[in-house]
Amino acid sequence: MRRILQVEPSSGAPYPVYLGHDLSQVWQPKWRRAVLIADGNTDRLFGEAVRKALPEGSLSQVVIPGEASKSRETKAQIEDAMLAARIDRSACIVALGGGVVVDLAGFIAATYLRGIDHVNVATTLLAQVDAAIGGKTAINTGHGKNLIGAFHHPRAVLLHTGGLAQLPDVELRNGLAEVVKHAMIADGELFDTLETWAAHTDGLRPPDEIIARCVAIKAQVVADDDRDRGKRNILNFGHTVAHAIEGASHHAVPHGHAVAMGMVVESRLAAMAGSLPEADLTRLVALLSAVGLPTAPPHPFDVARDHLARDKKTEHDVIRCAVPNRIGFIDPDAEGRWARPIDLAALEAAWDFGG
Amino acid sequence: MRRILQVEPSSGAPYPVYLGHDLSQVWQPKWRRAVLIADGNTDRLFGEAVRKALPEGSLSQVVIPGEASKSRETKAQIEDAMLAARIDRSACIVALGGGVVVDLAGFIAATYLRGIDHVNVATTLLAQVDAAIGGKTAINTGHGKNLIGAFHHPRAVLLHTGGLAQLPDVELRNGLAEVVKHAMIADGELFDTLETWAAHTDGLRPPDEIIARCVAIKAQVVADDDRDRGKRNILNFGHTVAHAIEGASHHAVPHGHAVAMGMVVESRLAAMAGSLPEADLTRLVALLSAVGLPTAPPHPFDVARDHLARDKKTEHDVIRCAVPNRIGFIDPDAEGRWARPIDLAALEAAWDFGG
Repeated sequence: MRRILQVEPSSGAPYPVYLGHDLSQVWQPKWRRAVLIADGNTDRLFGEAVRKALPEGSLSQVVIPGEASKSRETKAQIEDAMLAARIDRSACIVALGGGVVVDLAGFIAATYLRGIDHVNVATTLLAQVDAAIGGKTAINTGHGKNLIGAFHHPRAVLLHTGGLAQLPDVELRNGLAEVVKHAMIADGELFDTLETWAAHTDGLRPPDEIIARCVAIKAQVVADDDRDRGKRNILNFGHTVAHAIEGASHHAVPHGHAVAMGMVVESRLAAMAGSLPEADLTRLVALLSAVGLPTAPPHPFDVARDHLARDKKTEHDVIRCAVPNRIGFIDPDAEGRWARPIDLAALEAAWDFGG
Repeated sequence: MRRILQVEPSSGAPYPVYLGHDLSQVWQPKWRRAVLIADGNTDRLFGEAVRKALPEGSLSQVVIPGEASKSRETKAQIEDAMLAARIDRSACIVALGGGVVVDLAGFIAATYLRGIDHVNVATTLLAQVDAAIGGKTAINTGHGKNLIGAFHHPRAVLLHTGGLAQLPDVELRNGLAEVVKHAMIADGELFDTLETWAAHTDGLRPPDEIIARCVAIKAQVVADDDRDRGKRNILNFGHTVAHAIEGASHHAVPHGHAVAMGMVVESRLAAMAGSLPEADLTRLVALLSAVGLPTAPPHPFDVARDHLARDKKTEHDVIRCAVPNRIGFIDPDAEGRWARPIDLAALEAAWDFGG
């Protein structure tokens, strides 16, 4: 286990992030019981090893893999099992898995007896560089993804990067989209590193140094603004368009793939407006292609138009994007905002470009 | 409308408390839409007047009066109605009613799009002196009350004390138990005032000054500790026993009535241990009787024993009580804790005293 940094959220207590999966090194004596929450796949691969590190009398809850488990029903079932087992405020929830499990388990931790502790053991690349860090928790409803949730920081995060060996390519690429995003919004050197890495490997499993760099970027943003009040919106780069693509495809397009397409469309919008160099757009498209991610939306703008306004961040029907001004940099003073309102006609032109 | 104080929670933004119900005086321009949540009774009495103060395009949700509305199902129904109406983060939820409505609406506000603003318009005495202030929100499950919830402070609280004229006696007494509790834990002069008031009136509708004093006590506690980490536990006086009485009676005993009995049992426990003067116990019993509240549990200890350990605040199976050392005062240094572990045999003796 290697401690890579401490996250210091702008609201909430600091917590450490480790490379590894040795729970015993972060376990606090006051946690007399644990509730392990994993999906079936993760449980099969890593459940036994993790359960050995937990106190006697701990509870284990296995959910079906996939977004459908981020539901009110699954949340209620796990809560009821915890209540029946008399899990009290001194317990700690251990989320073992990817984005679905950490989002669900974190939201259960946020509202069980008005909030108990939780630890994330992230086994997917997406969770390691994004979902497991930052305190956003949520479930989905029939109206869309992540619509009901809370901000609730974990007490510790373990990045089980050894687990990436068993991760399917599609899941690795989901995570790589967020890796590229982190480079685009905050770290030009990381972007260079990614180009080199993608050119000299199969471009699927990034080394620990790249993962640690992404975590550092996310931790910095969360330290400045952990509640989406300003700077954190830069993490939304690509996501305004991605959410519309996901909605229009009824979530048939995997999240990271939608983010890749979203970054291209939003960057083209910026390039057309002159606020991002064309050359940087070209490099983005090339890097995404090199790691096997798509760079054009599967449907024309018209199909997705209605899904744009349904974004969680939409206020007063104004649609906003956060786009870098060049690779590795977003100017906070450009129009004085982290996320700018966008013109739908311009977005349509960027979206349908070459289509 | 008279502004009586500002609550300054130890975590979270400050918010004002007013006597009155003129929403327009606290309305913020950024709240372009409102979601009014009320129960059927409250809506019939006050809904029309309140709706007039809300922006166009606001949503109105009426729930069935009673604890059964503090459910996952009602929460989901209202959330789905809000999502269907495209209520976004710029909206404000207005809770109009008593404890059930403010707890439910506050919890919806806490988790809708990871948290939106809400304002409490408290129409019952219980909500005015307790539930509407302090940021605790929750729903019930089959396992008990308030087991799933969050800490989420309102942006403003309006105490519609004029509405007390229409409140049934049983509801007034529910609130009076918390009024007496506030005096017991923090304000000996208020206790004297209550004795005089109860002796010279019908002891049902306390004047605004008494309500304002209770709000000030609660606000002070929340300013020191809004997350149940220490001092806030003094608000739990009477409640450890009350929750067991409610559980054993399957919630047939109204909350305030259970709190009255709970304060007597917990105070007798303290008197037996020599940490509360007998004379103060006698005055407590007399005041509760004067305002028509019960002073002895409806079942013997044995019937309620199993419900004691199920309290939300129980950790490691240790049962705790917070009891004053004299009327108006809890010594934080007595055994160094706000809430002390109690001996079950002693509690049984106090509970079954005279029974």
